[in-house]
Amino acid sequence: MLAEILSIGTELLIGQVVNTNATWLARRLALLGIDVHRVVTVGDNMARLCEAVEIALGRADLVVCTGGLGPTADDITIEAVARVMGDTLEQRPDVARHIEEMFSRRGRPMSRLDLKQALFPPSAELIPNPAGTAFGLCIRRGEADLMAFPGVPSELEAMWQAWAEPRLAARAGATIRSTLLKYAGCTEAELAELVSDAFAAKNPTVAPYTNSGEVHLRVTAKAVGPEEADALLAPVVAGLIERGVRFFFGRDDDTLPSVVGSHLRAARQTLAVAESATGGLLASRITDVPGSSDYFRGGCVAYSVDAKVRNLGVPSELIAAHGAVSRETTEAMAQAARHAFGAEWGIGTTGWAGPSPGVAESDVGLVYICVAGPGGALSSREYRWGRHAREQIKHFATQRALATLLRKIKASQGSLVGER
Amino acid sequence: MLAEILSIGTELLIGQVVNTNATWLARRLALLGIDVHRVVTVGDNMARLCEAVEIALGRADLVVCTGGLGPTADDITIEAVARVMGDTLEQRPDVARHIEEMFSRRGRPMSRLDLKQALFPPSAELIPNPAGTAFGLCIRRGEADLMAFPGVPSELEAMWQAWAEPRLAARAGATIRSTLLKYAGCTEAELAELVSDAFAAKNPTVAPYTNSGEVHLRVTAKAVGPEEADALLAPVVAGLIERGVRFFFGRDDDTLPSVVGSHLRAARQTLAVAESATGGLLASRITDVPGSSDYFRGGCVAYSVDAKVRNLGVPSELIAAHGAVSRETTEAMAQAARHAFGAEWGIGTTGWAGPSPGVAESDVGLVYICVAGPGGALSSREYRWGRHAREQIKHFATQRALATLLRKIKASQGSLVGER
Repeated sequence: MLAEILSIGTELLIGQVVNTNATWLARRLALLGIDVHRVVTVGDNMARLCEAVEIALGRADLVVCTGGLGPTADDITIEAVARVMGDTLEQRPDVARHIEEMFSRRGRPMSRLDLKQALFPPSAELIPNPAGTAFGLCIRRGEADLMAFPGVPSELEAMWQAWAEPRLAARAGATIRSTLLKYAGCTEAELAELVSDAFAAKNPTVAPYTNSGEVHLRVTAKAVGPEEADALLAPVVAGLIERGVRFFFGRDDDTLPSVVGSHLRAARQTLAVAESATGGLLASRITDVPGSSDYFRGGCVAYSVDAKVRNLGVPSELIAAHGAVSRETTEAMAQAARHAFGAEWGIGTTGWAGPSPGVAESDVGLVYICVAGPGGALSSREYRWGRHAREQIKHFATQRALATLLRKIKASQGSLVGER
Repeated sequence: MLAEILSIGTELLIGQVVNTNATWLARRLALLGIDVHRVVTVGDNMARLCEAVEIALGRADLVVCTGGLGPTADDITIEAVARVMGDTLEQRPDVARHIEEMFSRRGRPMSRLDLKQALFPPSAELIPNPAGTAFGLCIRRGEADLMAFPGVPSELEAMWQAWAEPRLAARAGATIRSTLLKYAGCTEAELAELVSDAFAAKNPTVAPYTNSGEVHLRVTAKAVGPEEADALLAPVVAGLIERGVRFFFGRDDDTLPSVVGSHLRAARQTLAVAESATGGLLASRITDVPGSSDYFRGGCVAYSVDAKVRNLGVPSELIAAHGAVSRETTEAMAQAARHAFGAEWGIGTTGWAGPSPGVAESDVGLVYICVAGPGGALSSREYRWGRHAREQIKHFATQRALATLLRKIKASQGSLVGER
């Protein structure tokens, strides 16, 4: 089955809005095993929109339109579709009622213009919009289907998942189940070495990609029903987790900070950080997780030598002997974080996230990360991310710090054997 | 002049990558006064790419391609363009030399495949790529020009601005000059009240938009030459800055943290922060600025009451009396930041960035921000961002904190009169 995505809206052609709808739809279509050969964006212009609909219907089995379903004069998608189909527009009483109810529930007055959104070609099937006034439509010409959705991402996504996906999956005679496995603390090549033979499989398919310091594997199975698809997925997923266990941290909506948090909460342990290279980003990512105050005690951003000595209690002789950016200072900071905030776990970061006076060019991107655990056990490592921008280096450093912490927590809980 | 954008890459059709290049190009083309009627995305497929190039050249004066210029087998843009033009491919010695130098500078071995990037149709003009191995091309057919750029956003943007924009502006017989004025600490409506009559002007045009807690005005002038365009811009820009002076903070590449930094450096003053609601994000944004160690002493992320008392020295009786989230505790934290890190300026933040046990639903989004200045002068305020997500609330809070700090620094330096 071949689909074409038709994005409609002048705001896309003047660069006011990024076309994330097309990306989202492309991903959902790929999950259904439906190919996309073209994404076409046109503005709110009747002649060009009709032409684009006509051409798309001529070369695809499914045309998915987004945008142009609103009540104003520049919302012309439904009328364009009707013209191409040689159809008229008629008011649908059920949609008119829905729109009236929406307005009265929101306590806003309805104008006559708003009822424009109740006009559809008689041959069209309607796609309900529980969250807005813009219903979508599905209409058939020959062997091709055209579906039109609103451009508001939340409405498009809800309507697509509730209405379009079950129908498309049923038509394909298949259910698609997909899960994302997430790994950190390794490169894509390192992970591929552990699991590369899985990439050749046809069902489930396994596709790797890197995503800002993480490696993700998208595992997708296709079967006649959900149980069959899950049965195909389960052993492959178990194998991929097991073989990459040193780096695996979570699935789907899990994030490194959220998984670290779950482990700390389960173990009733606490965490504190002492940041120089990461400058507060590590604490910020940890506190992005709801409920992090259960286990996160706090952090010190010790950006100056003075702060390292005065606010963290790192001995000034140690910094003088080894330098502010050194494994020794980083280890002392990780320990100091534990003591200063009374936490079981501490993380320290130092480094040069960008060029700085007195720093050799070859040292830009040099970062030390240390995790100090209960009882004072230390795990520290040097990284070099010289070719990257300051924000990226900071982000990579937080990823590595959290990945190391997670491994250490798991090892201390005995859930990972063979930890080096 | 009419342009068409042709985005090339299968990664776009499977939803792996968001097409931000098309958005960026559309915005730059709009600035030049060039219309875009269509954006077309195709994959790495020779037949469909050739067809898309052929059709685009038939209906636009300018076709801008991005992507498919790499060294691997799926990078086929140059070959497709050559086929459509009925042209051959020849190795360009200067490009081959550039590629060899790039590899030797990075200390990486070059494969024979990499020299594929030196192959171009003889009739093409080359577009230099200072940052990568993929040169672009510009080729003419009839009255239409086709330009091809790499898909790496930083390379595309640098090449577009250095090579394409001056040529297109010259051809249009006009120079476009544009500047972005940035305001913070106000809503779009508040700023519009001060400057709204400017929005009706035709040359320069003034267009407002909000961008994650800031309000930006894009001012664009069109004239026969750069001097004339600048002469049109200057008085309008001066008026817009003056009328929004309470909120204006910078232009173009300026960020709130970078402007705050410039003012602190100029005044030889230092800053420290004590964060609860913002959880480290404030320190992280401050340290995103190169050279921030000149004026940023450090920060304490005091996420627990214990940390506020122990690590910042906020009296526990004060917290007990007023609550951890209160104006009083926030003011004490701002002062404590100054003292703990020995800085002239201190910022404190407390609040509920998300639902939390024991917190009333109506208090979610409640944030206090306090700026403490030299001598201990305090400026604190309560904010309510209840309808927003945790990350957004944190970001808004850092914006307001930095905007307040900037106003206070300017006032203390006497560069702003009438400060309340």
